[in-house]
Amino acid sequence: MGKGRLEAFSDGVIAVIITIMVLEMKVPHDADPAALAPLVPVFLSYVLSFVFVGIYWNNHHHMFHAVHRVNGATLWANLHLLFWLSLVPFVTGWMDENHFAPLTVAAYGFVLLGAACAYTILTRTLLSVHGGDSLLARALGKDLKGWISLVIYVAAIPLAFVHPWIACGLYVLVAAIWLLPDRRFEKLLAEKP
Amino acid sequence: MGKGRLEAFSDGVIAVIITIMVLEMKVPHDADPAALAPLVPVFLSYVLSFVFVGIYWNNHHHMFHAVHRVNGATLWANLHLLFWLSLVPFVTGWMDENHFAPLTVAAYGFVLLGAACAYTILTRTLLSVHGGDSLLARALGKDLKGWISLVIYVAAIPLAFVHPWIACGLYVLVAAIWLLPDRRFEKLLAEKP
Amino acid sequence: MGKGRLEAFSDGVIAVIITIMVLEMKVPHDADPAALAPLVPVFLSYVLSFVFVGIYWNNHHHMFHAVHRVNGATLWANLHLLFWLSLVPFVTGWMDENHFAPLTVAAYGFVLLGAACAYTILTRTLLSVHGGDSLLARALGKDLKGWISLVIYVAAIPLAFVHPWIACGLYVLVAAIWLLPDRRFEKLLAEKP
Amino acid sequence: MGKGRLEAFSDGVIAVIITIMVLEMKVPHDADPAALAPLVPVFLSYVLSFVFVGIYWNNHHHMFHAVHRVNGATLWANLHLLFWLSLVPFVTGWMDENHFAPLTVAAYGFVLLGAACAYTILTRTLLSVHGGDSLLARALGKDLKGWISLVIYVAAIPLAFVHPWIACGLYVLVAAIWLLPDRRFEKLLAEKP
Repeated sequence: MGKGRLEAFSDGVIAVIITIMVLEMKVPHDADPAALAPLVPVFLSYVLSFVFVGIYWNNHHHMFHAVHRVNGATLWANLHLLFWLSLVPFVTGWMDENHFAPLTVAAYGFVLLGAACAYTILTRTLLSVHGGDSLLARALGKDLKGWISLVIYVAAIPLAFVHPWIACGLYVLVAAIWLLPDRRFEKLLAEKP
Repeated sequence: MGKGRLEAFSDGVIAVIITIMVLEMKVPHDADPAALAPLVPVFLSYVLSFVFVGIYWNNHHHMFHAVHRVNGATLWANLHLLFWLSLVPFVTGWMDENHFAPLTVAAYGFVLLGAACAYTILTRTLLSVHGGDSLLARALGKDLKGWISLVIYVAAIPLAFVHPWIACGLYVLVAAIWLLPDRRFEKLLAEKP
Repeated sequence: MGKGRLEAFSDGVIAVIITIMVLEMKVPHDADPAALAPLVPVFLSYVLSFVFVGIYWNNHHHMFHAVHRVNGATLWANLHLLFWLSLVPFVTGWMDENHFAPLTVAAYGFVLLGAACAYTILTRTLLSVHGGDSLLARALGKDLKGWISLVIYVAAIPLAFVHPWIACGLYVLVAAIWLLPDRRFEKLLAEKP
Repeated sequence: MGKGRLEAFSDGVIAVIITIMVLEMKVPHDADPAALAPLVPVFLSYVLSFVFVGIYWNNHHHMFHAVHRVNGATLWANLHLLFWLSLVPFVTGWMDENHFAPLTVAAYGFVLLGAACAYTILTRTLLSVHGGDSLLARALGKDLKGWISLVIYVAAIPLAFVHPWIACGLYVLVAAIWLLPDRRFEKLLAEKP
């Protein structure tokens, strides 16, 4: 089975997710700078969620470059990932609405953790189709970044109840780890004969 | 006529449908766990609708692998399917808003039944283009799962008025039938010379 | 310049338009059949708008089969068409909100007229690129359906002030004219060597 | 790395942005012409934003015709552009809600400036991949229109506080500069052997 339509559908869903988040930013009813003050944290959480969804799209794009075929399990593993990403606008909105209350910040981390687990499952599904000596397997390697992210999320969720900003700082850290471009696929694809 | 644009348009519509459903989940105005309690059934209905729309996308994807050409009737049969799917967010929202009242659960089943009928019509339209000995016809076979689903929906709609959970249980049963991957197309496509 | 991206972008915009219209159907707060009664005209206007947008997608799809290249003018003529289509959810919602008041029904017809004019302009732009003896020109022929639709819209707008249902009947008539599949392109493409 | 998926994802995001702006136009609760009067500026700002987003799509489309490969930096430069474009519906809505108050008109210009800077960065990223004697470099030339737009935006933002209509006039001027089709790419692509 070809990968074209899976890519197209994922692009569509991620495009909608990344764009409807902006609808959570309610337009202020005043036009003075003071009206913008309460929007600052809302805006920062929008930027963070935009970056996270952007990272997933980027990694998805990179990984599927090395993918040659997909099966039924891949389709569902991919839908499972899209399911968790579709919850990002909801938890972003809940966090905004309640001024980064601990529970909402933990919920945000929980959804990020869910998406990260779903991505790992998708990776395993693809590896089982392509085999351990495939380009894909070599490109993924030990997936260090992936495992570090999972560990940080698991730590951040309880730490949100100590202080929400600790958890937020950890989320920003994960984003920073991934923003540094993942050159593994680019390197290997460049070597490709 | 090629099938590429029909697939792309269907992907786009289904991507929007599956994503706007999350907008029905209103962000709670509180940040304590009690605020999440009323969201549990809303969340479960979101999961169910996500799975149903995901099943349709998966089956659409599988079926169109075996499709070689489409005609004007196919385009309209496909739009007819997308029409019923576009009502899924509406009935999901109505069911949530009224705490799974019998009428709303029956309406949910009615929309699923409409989508299932539309899918069957789409199948027939494609078969009339491809002929009875095509790869498509062999892959569909007797379409047992399709007919069982139709029967269960027809039974579930009146049973919603006996008790909504009976109908909901039957909807979950249909989803479970389809979640087990439909290997018919994969098998036949693997045999393809 | 290739036509692939113009098609993909149009598919995306039309997919969003056709799907967000369902957001205009507000979920009723009651679960008895009486709560659905006020939804009947809303639902019918949704069906009508869905069919109109579906017709535009279908015709766009058919026409671009016969298109070989596009230029800058085509891109803007196409965006102009998408602009008018993007107003369909707005006028549908206005008509629903005011129970098919004459002014709103006339506005609905005005937007349909705008879209029809935009489609005609797009056709002319494409013809100027392809020449009078192209497959496209032969497929379009005298574009009788197109001109009849324009005439009906121009008549329907003032008639909405006589009685809204006259105008609505005329809109349904135009939809019916187009729902009969436009076999011109299929025929000619089948002849294509 | 191929450019196909970057184009598809950008098409998806821009399609959603250009369409959800219409949701900012709230349906009037009356059906007399007076109810439409307050909608006139809202409608004009919708047209302006539609044209701006359309210009970006058009230029994106033209530029990527001359692009042969993308790298990780391109993906992020492109997401950065989409980020600024995703803010257009928000600032359009804020401007409408506050009847073109100076601060909101300045904010609108700020987002346009951000998008213009992001587009310039994207251009530089692509040039660094393709080299100074590539088709892309020759097509962009000195990018006069791009620099003039930046200058006009920088002037318009403070002038919004003198009078909002001066800034709005300048935004319309920029749109007019770009609406005249950018024939650079078309010319060079026509010459392409």
